[in-house]
Amino acid sequence: MLEDLKKKVCDANLRLKDEGLVIRTWGNASGVDRKSGHLVIKPSGLDTNGMKPRHMVVVSLETGEVVEGELNPSSDTPTHLELYRAFNRIGGVVHTHSVYATAYAQVGRDIPPLGTTHADSFYGAIPCTRALRADEIHNNYEACTGKVIAERFASINPSQMQAVLVAQHGPFTWGSSPDAAVENASLLEHMAKLAVLSTSLTPYPKPIPQELQDKHYFRKHGPDATYGQK
Amino acid sequence: MLEDLKKKVCDANLRLKDEGLVIRTWGNASGVDRKSGHLVIKPSGLDTNGMKPRHMVVVSLETGEVVEGELNPSSDTPTHLELYRAFNRIGGVVHTHSVYATAYAQVGRDIPPLGTTHADSFYGAIPCTRALRADEIHNNYEACTGKVIAERFASINPSQMQAVLVAQHGPFTWGSSPDAAVENASLLEHMAKLAVLSTSLTPYPKPIPQELQDKHYFRKHGPDATYGQK
Amino acid sequence: MLEDLKKKVCDANLRLKDEGLVIRTWGNASGVDRKSGHLVIKPSGLDTNGMKPRHMVVVSLETGEVVEGELNPSSDTPTHLELYRAFNRIGGVVHTHSVYATAYAQVGRDIPPLGTTHADSFYGAIPCTRALRADEIHNNYEACTGKVIAERFASINPSQMQAVLVAQHGPFTWGSSPDAAVENASLLEHMAKLAVLSTSLTPYPKPIPQELQDKHYFRKHGPDATYGQK
Amino acid sequence: MLEDLKKKVCDANLRLKDEGLVIRTWGNASGVDRKSGHLVIKPSGLDTNGMKPRHMVVVSLETGEVVEGELNPSSDTPTHLELYRAFNRIGGVVHTHSVYATAYAQVGRDIPPLGTTHADSFYGAIPCTRALRADEIHNNYEACTGKVIAERFASINPSQMQAVLVAQHGPFTWGSSPDAAVENASLLEHMAKLAVLSTSLTPYPKPIPQELQDKHYFRKHGPDATYGQK
Repeated sequence: MLEDLKKKVCDANLRLKDEGLVIRTWGNASGVDRKSGHLVIKPSGLDTNGMKPRHMVVVSLETGEVVEGELNPSSDTPTHLELYRAFNRIGGVVHTHSVYATAYAQVGRDIPPLGTTHADSFYGAIPCTRALRADEIHNNYEACTGKVIAERFASINPSQMQAVLVAQHGPFTWGSSPDAAVENASLLEHMAKLAVLSTSLTPYPKPIPQELQDKHYFRKHGPDATYGQK
Repeated sequence: MLEDLKKKVCDANLRLKDEGLVIRTWGNASGVDRKSGHLVIKPSGLDTNGMKPRHMVVVSLETGEVVEGELNPSSDTPTHLELYRAFNRIGGVVHTHSVYATAYAQVGRDIPPLGTTHADSFYGAIPCTRALRADEIHNNYEACTGKVIAERFASINPSQMQAVLVAQHGPFTWGSSPDAAVENASLLEHMAKLAVLSTSLTPYPKPIPQELQDKHYFRKHGPDATYGQK
Repeated sequence: MLEDLKKKVCDANLRLKDEGLVIRTWGNASGVDRKSGHLVIKPSGLDTNGMKPRHMVVVSLETGEVVEGELNPSSDTPTHLELYRAFNRIGGVVHTHSVYATAYAQVGRDIPPLGTTHADSFYGAIPCTRALRADEIHNNYEACTGKVIAERFASINPSQMQAVLVAQHGPFTWGSSPDAAVENASLLEHMAKLAVLSTSLTPYPKPIPQELQDKHYFRKHGPDATYGQK
Repeated sequence: MLEDLKKKVCDANLRLKDEGLVIRTWGNASGVDRKSGHLVIKPSGLDTNGMKPRHMVVVSLETGEVVEGELNPSSDTPTHLELYRAFNRIGGVVHTHSVYATAYAQVGRDIPPLGTTHADSFYGAIPCTRALRADEIHNNYEACTGKVIAERFASINPSQMQAVLVAQHGPFTWGSSPDAAVENASLLEHMAKLAVLSTSLTPYPKPIPQELQDKHYFRKHGPDATYGQK
């Protein structure tokens, strides 16, 4: 079942490794099929060497139970499930420990929009969640990770901001497809690197003004976009 | 028309990608033919994969209108036009979001001449423009970007300083040809990296004295240059 | 004798070079055969180019004397011996001067557990030893290096923390085999890099809480681990 | 004449480029033949692409005049001459603008011996010269660059410290041969990188004690060295 989606999810996981966003087995990509109510995700701890679409695990979006697949799904599956439930228009989710984004997550700070490069891809500061409480760590930790992300997005549009940092942990991104989520993981890492470099020049660089963010973001995104070819 | 210039502009855009100065489609190179009054520039949002000279767009230097080409010209075309108009001896313009130079642009600082490496290529501090005002962002944003560059160069010789940082945005460079502009984009990034590293050792490193700047710059540039082979 | 272990030790030394953890001849890996009471280690100053298992040197774990081999053993052999004696369940030891870990050793600081990436691999802060005293430098320096490591681990479990920084010097790691020790050297360098980046954002980033360390470490290690495939 | 030395000097210049210590034409290596009183050096501004031993220029150590060669010698030739005259046991000299070492030169600071990695290769802090005075910049600038290096080494043994930073400029290194000088340029860059990383953790890291420097330096260098194979 879902052969096409399995291939897309497998390819997304391979691209994460190729781009250096994931080392070892520290990351995962998934995709969702809203019609059938199924999520397809990388198996837990499986190396990308020799990884094939048939290794992907199919999980019920409603119950979180494995529907098909011989391997255990990623240990982060409950986080992915929460994100697909909270953001009902997204088609793919990615989790990495890419170094610059993780550095920001480790200090618990949003990545401010310091330049137009950021504004071209992300609308506003890339938010960092609060740290999980002890009870959230003890009970349903991975699901709670998804819940604090959803909580952080109470007043943020997940279509315009397709990335988040989980405090003390690392980044999650999403998009219309597994590959779009990988693209956002790559863009996030790039913005984090730019922000680290700017911060090395001055401790608290100032975000760019709202009108410049609007100009650049909406030049490339939404109904009035003028960038590129029609 | 302008087949030779189209090839040069295409090559310049490909070199930007090869040298890692541009990722995705975030940058552009153009060239000008002063005789015919035409500018040749990369299409908007076109990936360099498979990009050919015939994809380049020809634009009137006077009116800014497309003269030849099936694709939309780069969204930064009005900035390029302003630079060719303001600096009437230059033959090529390049825009990138290269990381070290962009880090400086994001904090709105000139790159000071901290050593002879800098002075060998750039005469004085590499200037950063003021930020654009809200009205400049709202009306003719890309043209205003060119105008604040020209404003910043009121008392700077654009032949001796072939690079600028646009505050909150990133670098533009120019030169006698599209390829010379790319070379300057590469040199700029190198100087920015050296300055970031020096700043990591001490927050405000001191510029080198004027006589040392003169010695190194004019050893390599201008009528009294002694460097290299005759 | 010990042909299989010689191959493993040789491979471990080659991997150190391949992964960029060792440059020049600045590092070494060894393995131990507890039954025969012998340690197998890289020769002193030997380049990895053309290095073969037959070049490995066999040393008595009890006396420290060469049992087999035509070349001098690594100058750090006495440190390795001390570690095998102090930590009697380990099978391999590695020493490198990898840059991020060495940067921490040079400032004499533990690498704090700043995120779950760290906690997935190391339980607690990666400890840094005290500096050696003058008398320890003058007499049996290399053995004393091993002794200060053992001293630092008085109340640390060397199975849960398989890495250490020797102050003013650099990292040592260990594991169940020579290859496992190399893996830990690689993981250590990655955590050090993440910590350097976080520290560039804020001078003293806060360690994550104990419960989050427990959650991540024991999700992957020990009898209750759930990560990966059974 | 000096065919063998020309090959060594050419190879040294090529290695500088291969190791990334020199970009563009920003660096040079030379060698000396004490018997004939000649120095062999890279031509000024010549790219390493297609560079051959026959392009090397032979210069008189006494007069500084070109003895053989069709191209102009490196503009830094007078600096090399001063070094060969001041340090009469060295056989090769190298100049680069490698980024980490140049960052230190740009802030005018010695690179302190922060760890045993440094002490294994350099005995003491790698010294930075004073800045040149205006009169030294105006008259015989390149020769004065050599003279301030010699001045800085008034009480330093150039056999134990084969590297220097020229303030506001960059590094020079030397050794028993052109290749040994390149090796030292590479080691210097590595120590500078380690020192930059340590400084990013704490602004003024403390040098290691003298006895530890002695231990490591003399373990590898001089008559009592024990490192490596006999």
